Amino acid sequence: MANPIKIVVAGPRGRMGREAVNLVKETPEFELVAVLDRRFDGMRLSEIDGFSNLDVRIYTDVEECFQNVDADVLIDLTVPETGYVHTKTALLHGVRPVVGTTGFTEEEISELRKLAEERDIGCIIAPNFAVGAILMMKFSQMAAKYFKNVEIIELHHDQKLDAPSGTALKTAKMISVNREKKKQGHPNEKETISGARGANYDGMHIHSVRLPGLVAHQQVIFGAPGETLTIRHDSYNRSSFMTGVKMSVETVMNLNTLVYGLEHILE
Amino acid sequence: MANPIKIVVAGPRGRMGREAVNLVKETPEFELVAVLDRRFDGMRLSEIDGFSNLDVRIYTDVEECFQNVDADVLIDLTVPETGYVHTKTALLHGVRPVVGTTGFTEEEISELRKLAEERDIGCIIAPNFAVGAILMMKFSQMAAKYFKNVEIIELHHDQKLDAPSGTALKTAKMISVNREKKKQGHPNEKETISGARGANYDGMHIHSVRLPGLVAHQQVIFGAPGETLTIRHDSYNRSSFMTGVKMSVETVMNLNTLVYGLEHILE
Amino acid sequence: MANPIKIVVAGPRGRMGREAVNLVKETPEFELVAVLDRRFDGMRLSEIDGFSNLDVRIYTDVEECFQNVDADVLIDLTVPETGYVHTKTALLHGVRPVVGTTGFTEEEISELRKLAEERDIGCIIAPNFAVGAILMMKFSQMAAKYFKNVEIIELHHDQKLDAPSGTALKTAKMISVNREKKKQGHPNEKETISGARGANYDGMHIHSVRLPGLVAHQQVIFGAPGETLTIRHDSYNRSSFMTGVKMSVETVMNLNTLVYGLEHILE
Amino acid sequence: MANPIKIVVAGPRGRMGREAVNLVKETPEFELVAVLDRRFDGMRLSEIDGFSNLDVRIYTDVEECFQNVDADVLIDLTVPETGYVHTKTALLHGVRPVVGTTGFTEEEISELRKLAEERDIGCIIAPNFAVGAILMMKFSQMAAKYFKNVEIIELHHDQKLDAPSGTALKTAKMISVNREKKKQGHPNEKETISGARGANYDGMHIHSVRLPGLVAHQQVIFGAPGETLTIRHDSYNRSSFMTGVKMSVETVMNLNTLVYGLEHILE
Repeated sequence: MANPIKIVVAGPRGRMGREAVNLVKETPEFELVAVLDRRFDGMRLSEIDGFSNLDVRIYTDVEECFQNVDADVLIDLTVPETGYVHTKTALLHGVRPVVGTTGFTEEEISELRKLAEERDIGCIIAPNFAVGAILMMKFSQMAAKYFKNVEIIELHHDQKLDAPSGTALKTAKMISVNREKKKQGHPNEKETISGARGANYDGMHIHSVRLPGLVAHQQVIFGAPGETLTIRHDSYNRSSFMTGVKMSVETVMNLNTLVYGLEHILE
Repeated sequence: MANPIKIVVAGPRGRMGREAVNLVKETPEFELVAVLDRRFDGMRLSEIDGFSNLDVRIYTDVEECFQNVDADVLIDLTVPETGYVHTKTALLHGVRPVVGTTGFTEEEISELRKLAEERDIGCIIAPNFAVGAILMMKFSQMAAKYFKNVEIIELHHDQKLDAPSGTALKTAKMISVNREKKKQGHPNEKETISGARGANYDGMHIHSVRLPGLVAHQQVIFGAPGETLTIRHDSYNRSSFMTGVKMSVETVMNLNTLVYGLEHILE
Repeated sequence: MANPIKIVVAGPRGRMGREAVNLVKETPEFELVAVLDRRFDGMRLSEIDGFSNLDVRIYTDVEECFQNVDADVLIDLTVPETGYVHTKTALLHGVRPVVGTTGFTEEEISELRKLAEERDIGCIIAPNFAVGAILMMKFSQMAAKYFKNVEIIELHHDQKLDAPSGTALKTAKMISVNREKKKQGHPNEKETISGARGANYDGMHIHSVRLPGLVAHQQVIFGAPGETLTIRHDSYNRSSFMTGVKMSVETVMNLNTLVYGLEHILE
Repeated sequence: MANPIKIVVAGPRGRMGREAVNLVKETPEFELVAVLDRRFDGMRLSEIDGFSNLDVRIYTDVEECFQNVDADVLIDLTVPETGYVHTKTALLHGVRPVVGTTGFTEEEISELRKLAEERDIGCIIAPNFAVGAILMMKFSQMAAKYFKNVEIIELHHDQKLDAPSGTALKTAKMISVNREKKKQGHPNEKETISGARGANYDGMHIHSVRLPGLVAHQQVIFGAPGETLTIRHDSYNRSSFMTGVKMSVETVMNLNTLVYGLEHILE
């Protein structure tokens, strides 16, 4: 490949960051040029356990990094505060950010969008990089035009604290945009044990299953006379996010604004 | 077949009774010898719409029926009050009853058992004839010895009024016999919309889905570190009951007591 | 409703036609104005078993029907030869046809399209009216842009003769349009019993399950590192087609050309 | 706990052995007393990466180990040749083996059974420790008494070479014991693409799905008029084996013979 995309990864020692470093290493058209880490400034990444063969410099200071390194894209999988500084600095240096976070405020996003458009470069911020999960939500929204009866079952490991899951709520919200308003179930239905019919979101029912062994799964079931349509996503491990990160890196090179949410770059 | 089993069907014009008449007609080792109906006494069944070729007499009086007809088995799929009279009369005449009902009281069942044992003949009373549903419950009970974490999802058409379904409650009850007591889910889990975690039965969670298009479905999911085991029954129409009715007719010929519930004749 | 859509149903005594008559009867904005039947010319539909209360005339001659009856739409669920004559005659009389068939030739469709455009009216011809099945195919095609690994499992009752099903083949064809070419599975995989890996269509694998009890079901499973996305359609009975017929009647009123396949009117 | 079960683990650095060491560590009624490893003789396990806090001796010589260590149970998750020597030596020293392997010959098993019975102690050899998978097979065998129509779908990651999987073949074999012989599907069914109907094992059909993202899954579907019964096992990772290892350790203490296969200790 004549001109690989030159990438800086922030947070290489985190679980997601480690996967991102692997992704860059294994993709022929990508090239790792530096990493940002809050420790080990000036060392080589190859000196860190698990990164042998990755002879790039570790920077702690983001300004210094982008002054010294010729980069096309920043992949940031750190925490919101750090991520915000990284993203802003990258844009100021003409580097296109791909950021995984739900933590930016609307003001921060507006400011970053303005910066991206001033520089005429792309920036992608995504709360979720799992392409399958995003398609599940997108297809559910589309199906809601034709099916007004729908229930959501989400299934997770039993260490999860909140129910319903964030993905289930986001799916219900997206469905609501297209779905003809309706209180589902029989008007006279009755719970003999409370909770049986699940959580009620805008007339739709959401059920949360929690069991050891499960990872992260969701199915959306639409019903109409004589038929059901089911859209299901199973997430088995974090490597699922990397498909979305890869697609984002490729896409951000051709954008000249900020995109929030992977659903807007999937057709 | 030298000696087919001679059968009287009660309630031939009901939905289930009609299926039972068909079953008898299509099973070479079965022979229909009469029907019990609250109307049309003295007519031939073949004179009724939908029963051409079935030239047997219709009786309205159960006593008269069993005095005149040489029968081995009564299949009764009527209502509890009528069914009880039919069953008792059959036993008094040495005819083995196969009865589909949930409506008999414990006293009635005790009395019928006594009668059956006095005559040394069999009697089967079953709340549910769907062999698949009964195996689902039986297997769930067995699995509960090894998995203490389990959730039940039952899915029905949206004309169903009660939630959870009777089958779900019966399954939970059967699981409870073997399951190590446990409040499932994370101790600190929190419903952000009430009902998300479903109905709580003895620490187990039950979720009721209601959608047009669905018929009657249930899945029982057991979880343990690294694995899940799922047992699912799908009922598409009433013909599913006939497998159990057929098995019951064959089994009742070799019993000399009353059996309540098909799970006791499945090994 | 000031102006209901005036509808002629062809083939009212067939299984699908009977459902269509019911649909028209139960939809407030639809009005049944006549039926076409190869028998009973001149009688009232209400004289036929199962159609009491439907006092419209039965026509055997399609020309006579459309000369005498003021109709907006023809719903035709007969056989291809008859259906073709009906469709053509309807168009010549300015009546918009909604036709369920796979049996028209390309020449016939071209000719009908020309007629529709000359009259500036709509015509919808659909091999499949089940909206859920069409969405399943459409979503599968969309997902194939992001997932190149996919297998199809279709499950039908055991009276079905051909495997894979027509829907599975159509789905595979639609997926092929977007899917990056790939021979799936491990390059060195080996069947120890031939057929285990299913049918191979363009590198994708299709599996056909045949069991009593099943009706018509299909699931399309996409896989990528760490995740799977599954799209499943369950058809329980013919009433599922009526959602699509209804939508077609509403849509055909606003078309001025012929549309072949419901996927082109779903967004 | 007054008297914990004293355990030696063989192969502690392998993937399964590492899980077994964790299991022993986290189970209050178990106590790790030594490990067998082909390297590091005489060192403490706590000196090996990932085992801090586990201060037990590493033995390379099995004879020496059992002469010096007072043990109740050997958990062996090594390779067949080594495992055989370990198992035999353990029995000769009155230590009860729990061995995970498919690699022993019938002669070896006979010899080990004789040894166990002479010493009047238990020995469990299991090709598969996933309790859920074994219950799936056991329930399938039981259901086959009542359902003669069944198909198996097994789904694995696309690095798997053989199809059908060993578990699918074992399941089919177990079903065959109880299933009334039958060539399934329509007698005149026809594959328009060869392989669609899957592998044929004794008249049953087996389908093998291979996709990235999947781990190890199997579903067994039984069909009869109007209903289906589905038994499904999902294995997400190796921790699933530990439930079976734990149960085996507890059970082997009360046996006085050799048991081959976990299905014989599950009720």
